Order: sequence, then C-alpha cells, then structure tokens
Amino acid sequence: MEHKTDRPDAEVTAGVIVIGDEILSGRTKDANIAYIAAYLTEIGIRLKEVRIVADEEDEIVGAVNALRAAYTYVFTTGGIGPTHDDITADSVAKAFGVPIDVDERAVALMRQRFDPSRLTEARLRMARIPEGAELVDNPVSMAPGFMLENVVVMAGVPRIMQVMLDAVTPRLRKGRKMLSRTVRVDQPEGDVAPGLRRVQDAFPDVQMGSYPFFEEGRLGTRLVLRSIEIGRLEDALQAALRMLEEEKFPSFELIDET
Amino acid sequence: MEHKTDRPDAEVTAGVIVIGDEILSGRTKDANIAYIAAYLTEIGIRLKEVRIVADEEDEIVGAVNALRAAYTYVFTTGGIGPTHDDITADSVAKAFGVPIDVDERAVALMRQRFDPSRLTEARLRMARIPEGAELVDNPVSMAPGFMLENVVVMAGVPRIMQVMLDAVTPRLRKGRKMLSRTVRVDQPEGDVAPGLRRVQDAFPDVQMGSYPFFEEGRLGTRLVLRSIEIGRLEDALQAALRMLEEEKFPSFELIDET
Repeated sequence: MEHKTDRPDAEVTAGVIVIGDEILSGRTKDANIAYIAAYLTEIGIRLKEVRIVADEEDEIVGAVNALRAAYTYVFTTGGIGPTHDDITADSVAKAFGVPIDVDERAVALMRQRFDPSRLTEARLRMARIPEGAELVDNPVSMAPGFMLENVVVMAGVPRIMQVMLDAVTPRLRKGRKMLSRTVRVDQPEGDVAPGLRRVQDAFPDVQMGSYPFFEEGRLGTRLVLRSIEIGRLEDALQAALRMLEEEKFPSFELIDET
Repeated sequence: MEHKTDRPDAEVTAGVIVIGDEILSGRTKDANIAYIAAYLTEIGIRLKEVRIVADEEDEIVGAVNALRAAYTYVFTTGGIGPTHDDITADSVAKAFGVPIDVDERAVALMRQRFDPSRLTEARLRMARIPEGAELVDNPVSMAPGFMLENVVVMAGVPRIMQVMLDAVTPRLRKGRKMLSRTVRVDQPEGDVAPGLRRVQDAFPDVQMGSYPFFEEGRLGTRLVLRSIEIGRLEDALQAALRMLEEEKFPSFELIDET
C-alpha cells in the first residue's frame, strides 16, 4: 500500500556524483552515468545534474554539499573500496559533519563472504559507515553502500553499482514517469528549427529538444518530445508530424526508444 | 619557437561542461567526455572536473562561472545549434556579462556552405557569438565554435566537437604530459590494498590508484601509477611489481595503455 504522504505529484529530482581520477584522465570510460540516467527516468526521478570529480576530499565534500541542497536525492559512484584512495565514505561524513567508524552491521555482512583471516584492516575500510546512515545491500561482493539522509553512496564497479541501485530503489520517493517520443528526420537541424519552434509555441508544456547527428556523411536531426501527460505528448507528436509533412521533408520516421 | 613565457612547468587544468537534457534523461549516451579527457591528458592539460547540466540558462551560467574561476580552461559541448533549445552561446555571454549578436565573421564562414536562401534566421542563430570571442573553426559543417577568455565553446556532435578541439589546441597553454603505467592483478582489491599503501608511502610524489573490475565472475584490480617524471614513475612501477611478487599473487601483468 502506497503512502499518500509521499506526494506523488511533486517533481522528484536527483544529482549524480561520479568520483574517480580514472574517468578524468580518460583511462576509464564511465559506464554508470548513462545507466543511472535511464534508470532514474524509468522510475520517475528527474536527473538534473552530474558531476565527475577527482579522488580529493575537498572536491567530494563540495559536490555533495552543493547537490544535496539542490536536489531530492544525490547518488555517488566510486571510491568506497579498500585502498588508500577510497575516501568517499569519509568525505560524505565530513560533508554532513557526522562521525564515521567501522560499522558492526557492515562487518556482519562482510563476514558472510570473508573468513576472519581475510577480513583485513584494508577490507574493514569498506565497513566504514557515517553515523546515522542506513546500509544499502550489495549481494555481489557483500561490502555495502549506504544512504545518509538524501545521499546514496554506491560502488563504482558497474555490476555492483547496479545491484545497489536496485536495493535502494524501494526506499526512494518517485515522481510521475517522464514519457518521450522521438522522430528521426533526415534533414539538417537548421531546416527543422523554424517548424519545431512553431510546434513548441503551440505546446509550451511539452518539452521539445532537437539533437543533430552525423551519420554516413550526412547531418540529420532527432526531435524528442517529453511530457508526463500521455495525451499532451501524443497531441504534440501529431502536430510535429504534420509540421514535417507540411515542410515536405522527404524522409522522417517515429522511432522506438528502448 | 616556443615562448618561455608560457610557463611550461605550471600545472594547466581544465573543467568540462556537457550541456544537454538528452544525456541527463539517458536517451543519449555521452560520447565526448572520454574523448576530451584522453585528449587533454595527451597534451598535458589536467582535467579536474566535468559537469553535465540541463539546457537551462541558470544552470549553464552557474557552471561556466564556477569552472572558469577554478581552472585554466573550460570546454563546453552542446547547445550551439539552430533550434530554440540551443542557448549555450547566449548563456556564456550572460556569464561573462558581455553583449551577443550575429557575428559577421561567423556569417562569412557559413556562407561557404549555405547559399543565401538557406541562411535562414534559425541558421543565423549559429552565428551568434559573444563580443570579444575568437572563433573556433569547424571544417565539417562551417558553423564555428568560439573561445571567450578561457572558455572554449564547442558543438555536441562528436565529429564536430573533435575538429573544433583540434582547431583550438594550438592556442592553448600546455603542461607537461602526465605519464602512467597500469598493472592488472587478478586478485580482489582488498588483498592488494596493504601492499599498495606501502608502495604509495615510499613514493608520495607518484599518484597511485587502484580500480576494481568484475570480469567473468571474478573480481580483479587495476593499479595505475601516474607522474610527469618518467624516472620516478619507472622506479615506483618496479617497487609495485616487487611488492606483488613478495605477496605471491599468482597472476599480474603490466598492460599497455592505448
């Protein structure tokens, strides 16, 4: 049974903080942003901002404090492993001004995987949880993430981040899902722009974006229409398709989003 | 002949701002961050932060002003096309507090591609350049990017962004290139952590990171050592390889970075 106090109509927003020098140096290609973005859209949470910051305490503290004040939720990835450069948990504790220590609940979870001889000082770093945080389960490698107020701290390894996101999702407030329709037009964006602006003016409550692409030596445009109201979205889509016909563009098609 | 006044030893830093709702909704996977990160590392510029923000003026102005004060250079991608949601140029002008209008130099470039009948009002939006900015050439589709003080504004289409980055690079101050060595260890990060910390303590001037991975059902670790001094880097690498041998880890290897 859902609680009506969850205010299902209010917009629920999020920021993401990706922590990792390896992304900033270009050695590693981030695999988490696109996954989290699509996941949040699917459950009705609107991702408003992403920051990628270095493994440096000041940078992490600054980003956490900026984003937790601005958005309903903040999700961090990376920097919760066992090595000296894993400083996310301590930095989040600092951002909130709360103590942090090895958490017995986290140790108990890790004992399911590691016998006492392998539960080294380095591994116990992964059980450091800020005071007041709730754990987020990690069935893959046991060392948990955590949620402190509106900040969810997850691993950077994609497979582990993904199970943590699944684990925390039931605790999150969700908004209404943003729906979208995409039309591919084999015409440069500049040709499509005037007509699209007319459709936008007629449907100011439907978000419309155009995204140029360059494929096989030719420029084309994807038009994307977005709304939480299916009726308005379909009406705007029909208006956009009529506009494309009236402009006599030789080739366009509604494409599925998967 | 290089100018010594370019202070080649000072660290040159950068921030990147990716502008686009389509990335935040998960519809489009960003293809520019990893490219720019690797490119900047290659030319000796250290990327310190990336922000992905929505197509909203306040968000763009805030990010531009925060990052241009913090880093040597700021690179933006996206939002310089011909449609109503392309507001990057105007937002950057607002961030700097300078006027913006259709720039005759940009129009002249675009005339090389578009005959007068196709140089529509929408397309002329792409010639809007803030006062005082230098143009950045775009041989692919002619509509230029620009550089205003330390902020470089580029297209979001990867192929066009890439030629703009090439075009602006000769104007940038470069630092010394950050060199790196990577060792793949088929052992969980927690087993490697204590030894890595000892090596880090012995080489405090060499950056060391460890990055867990999960492949074929097993956890492993990539150790990455980084320095601008090749001698220190090689000494630290040898110390790390000795440590791995002493720990009797069954499998590890130096891997090439490409």
